Amino acid sequence: MGAANLLTASPAPAPPDDALAALTALVRDDMEACNREIVARMASPVALIPRLAAHIVAAGGKRLRPVLTLAAARMCGYSGGARHVQLAACVEFIHTATLLHDDVVDESQLRRGLASANAVFGNKASVLVGDFLFARAFQLMVADGSLDVLRILSAAAATIAEGEVLQLATQNDLSTSVERYLDVVRGKTAALFAAACEVGAVVANRPAAEAAALRDYGLNLGIAFQLVDDALDYAADQAVLGKTVGDDFREGKITLPVLTAYAAGSRGERAFWQRTIEASEQTEADLDQALALMTACGAIPATLARAAEFAGLAKASLSRFTDDPFRHALLAVADFTVNRPR
Amino acid sequence: MGAANLLTASPAPAPPDDALAALTALVRDDMEACNREIVARMASPVALIPRLAAHIVAAGGKRLRPVLTLAAARMCGYSGGARHVQLAACVEFIHTATLLHDDVVDESQLRRGLASANAVFGNKASVLVGDFLFARAFQLMVADGSLDVLRILSAAAATIAEGEVLQLATQNDLSTSVERYLDVVRGKTAALFAAACEVGAVVANRPAAEAAALRDYGLNLGIAFQLVDDALDYAADQAVLGKTVGDDFREGKITLPVLTAYAAGSRGERAFWQRTIEASEQTEADLDQALALMTACGAIPATLARAAEFAGLAKASLSRFTDDPFRHALLAVADFTVNRPR
Repeated sequence: MGAANLLTASPAPAPPDDALAALTALVRDDMEACNREIVARMASPVALIPRLAAHIVAAGGKRLRPVLTLAAARMCGYSGGARHVQLAACVEFIHTATLLHDDVVDESQLRRGLASANAVFGNKASVLVGDFLFARAFQLMVADGSLDVLRILSAAAATIAEGEVLQLATQNDLSTSVERYLDVVRGKTAALFAAACEVGAVVANRPAAEAAALRDYGLNLGIAFQLVDDALDYAADQAVLGKTVGDDFREGKITLPVLTAYAAGSRGERAFWQRTIEASEQTEADLDQALALMTACGAIPATLARAAEFAGLAKASLSRFTDDPFRHALLAVADFTVNRPR
Repeated sequence: MGAANLLTASPAPAPPDDALAALTALVRDDMEACNREIVARMASPVALIPRLAAHIVAAGGKRLRPVLTLAAARMCGYSGGARHVQLAACVEFIHTATLLHDDVVDESQLRRGLASANAVFGNKASVLVGDFLFARAFQLMVADGSLDVLRILSAAAATIAEGEVLQLATQNDLSTSVERYLDVVRGKTAALFAAACEVGAVVANRPAAEAAALRDYGLNLGIAFQLVDDALDYAADQAVLGKTVGDDFREGKITLPVLTAYAAGSRGERAFWQRTIEASEQTEADLDQALALMTACGAIPATLARAAEFAGLAKASLSRFTDDPFRHALLAVADFTVNRPR
């Protein structure tokens, strides 16, 4: 069976509008300024740096994390300066640096539907330009001058690396608990979502409780986002996903769809997962078999349902804020994350 | 001919004492506190992180960069706190992170005479633990709270990455100018030496001119250090070097010994360098041939003489400081860098 058939198992209808596009439109001027900042700050006398960085930055992506910083800052009433723009660029630089290193670590050939930077420029350049962007992000934060922002984003960067290393340690290990998998997700993905949102409150000088609420929103949104990503890796339309369906399967990555199917599996089915995921012995037909087992036990809808729970927590975190177009759009993005095109 | 024979071409006698050991002894208590700080701050709930970090940190090394921070701070009269210890640990973390990434980029199998971290734990873990140590360094700087220190070390980190990328761009390229090679050296090595020393003045609240002088000292010391390293890669006793003689040759790395021999070469000799360095076509006997060509044109002593010039500049940068045991030891280290055991 094809991966597309699994879509019918999705529990929620697609949203009428693209809530992420709506949120991005709300901060359009800020985001254009942020894009200019990103291009300006990638500059280096070493030509390969902006060339490689432009490859991944120009590949587009949704710019979800900087949009969150900008929208959070605006919801918190920030005005009268461009600090939020500069810090949104920092967030995107940190994200881009981790993408470059991730693609090296995962030996990915595709990123957002284009050849990955490591595929075009090699692993070495990708590692080093990632280092450069990471350092440049800290230079921009220093120029901004807020130790609170530096504290939040340096802690996020350490947590991201911890999550990535933990993911490496759980790879091919079917005895990984769901809680441990969620620790990986909190680290590798949700920590930067959380920091991106928290920074918006900090730049607007809001009280600690509001910064914490925005942090919670980002953290839970990030978990939901990653759970959906992990579901889409098995269930998406390849053209929409922008990467190869089944990448996680081939890499033996431990994600909730696999853990769910493994937990629900018969002895023979568990042997299948042990061979393909733990022993990394795979044949051409194994991905279809994996998809069939997931369909049989509802692993994809179960993963999406778990994602919806976290999206609900994200929305609840915004209850303390006055309703305005930014809050409205951030709430809609939480729903959209679970129901995005696939 | 063996590499050891080249030692007779060295222009300067070995120093009577190990000046680096003397400098380290001067800051022994601080350095012990720094080592404790390093171990404490490598901690993470993700066990692989301290395990891999301990592998490279325990491999020892000279701890030259943190010793420079500690000695510079003491020469500048810093007392009454442990900020210099914490910042020396930051410097060592940044250095360790770059070593981890360097070894991945260079595909090195040995580091300081032991199996490199990437050889033991794999490239993936080395990239990610490097990222962790880098982020952790910034967390420690934020805890210290000095934006000046953050500015100096974030700029150094960006410059290091630029130097590394530039080195990648010059690899296998014999048309690289000596000035461009020195740009690589300033970036990949000297920038962190410069920052390590400057931070010592900043933590002691010394005037900008003293910080700049210490920065110059570190920059020129770092250039001298790297030039000697590049000479030793062809001329050292392998047991002392702690890595494989001829690594740079096999990697097609453009260093001053190669540029000197290439510039002095006959047409036939240039063809040898083009085949071995540019086309990366090497046979077993080629390293000995490269060493013979270097000996014939004095490439190693010429490189060491250039290193001695930079060591002289380093020493001159300390003229504004009152003579005391720290200044005395820092001056001696500059000489020692050029005359260290090989």
